[in-house]
Amino acid sequence: MPPEPSSERRSERARRAVLDAVYELATSKGYAKLTIEAIASRAGVGKPTIYRWWSCKGAVALDALDERLGAASDLPDTGDVAADLAAQITSVTAMLTGDLGRVYRGIIGEAQSDPELMETVREIIVDPRVRVCRERLDRAVAAGQLRADVPTAVMVDLFYAPVYYRFLMGFDDADVERSGDLVREVLRGLSTST
Amino acid sequence: MPPEPSSERRSERARRAVLDAVYELATSKGYAKLTIEAIASRAGVGKPTIYRWWSCKGAVALDALDERLGAASDLPDTGDVAADLAAQITSVTAMLTGDLGRVYRGIIGEAQSDPELMETVREIIVDPRVRVCRERLDRAVAAGQLRADVPTAVMVDLFYAPVYYRFLMGFDDADVERSGDLVREVLRGLSTST
Repeated sequence: MPPEPSSERRSERARRAVLDAVYELATSKGYAKLTIEAIASRAGVGKPTIYRWWSCKGAVALDALDERLGAASDLPDTGDVAADLAAQITSVTAMLTGDLGRVYRGIIGEAQSDPELMETVREIIVDPRVRVCRERLDRAVAAGQLRADVPTAVMVDLFYAPVYYRFLMGFDDADVERSGDLVREVLRGLSTST
Repeated sequence: MPPEPSSERRSERARRAVLDAVYELATSKGYAKLTIEAIASRAGVGKPTIYRWWSCKGAVALDALDERLGAASDLPDTGDVAADLAAQITSVTAMLTGDLGRVYRGIIGEAQSDPELMETVREIIVDPRVRVCRERLDRAVAAGQLRADVPTAVMVDLFYAPVYYRFLMGFDDADVERSGDLVREVLRGLSTST
């Protein structure tokens, strides 16, 4: 007889099942129609198990999304800040026009009337990636490639705003995916070499 | 005895009552909680009257919003494109951080899982204002103030994206209102004079 799994391992298995269930249901049925009941049933756990770790379905979905965004939202550092940003934005927008994007769009939509969920969106998805991007831009400023008189926080807004604007305001997938092209125009205003 | 109002005037009165009701209810109770029933009851009309003119509550709310955005979203033409854009974006962001913005945010949120409503958002609110902005930018290009090699449609995205990004992604009102400051940085990349 195999050894009884420890409570920790059972917990981890339940957590995994919930994260997989929320993602599968959100992509197949649409995030708006998702309920905690359906997630619990699909994952084979009780609702209290879900509420032990997460406050609402949005919080579960954000963790599932964060996992899957993972490496694809990494910002490379080849020394060429324009190429690095364009590569990263191209990789992010490719995800946004797929399954991940549909889930993310649903969460952001719900968060428009739920400020606490919006805070969780920022905490889990946006802020950590903004931090990484600022560090990359700080290095480009230090290397004399970018202007030192514009805060890198503002630069991040300028680079990512078109992605979100197109993603959330009904643009075609092709336009969302072309947001990486705007890096060049924005950089022209931010670089020290014009 | 005053003359019987014509059917046209009765219609106009009902339309007016519905538009006022949707706006009052959306600002007092929140857009997400709004129902066609509540709008009809507040306006003193039947639900069929509302459905005769609008397909859903989002469509009613967009018309009410469009009316109120009206002049405040006009783009001046003083010949100084930087000042004109900054003035207009400042006026738009002031509205977005008030009652109008709360209603607009609710509609955009709902539209994330309702592509037809998103199309209506574009038709009623976004596209007409993008057209006006492009005309202003076309004149600035013709006057040699802006680069001719970047489509003005792309320039509009660059100017407005930060406004929407900050508005929809949980930034403080103060950051939303400061979006007008970014015009300068974006323009640096788009102007012919650097």
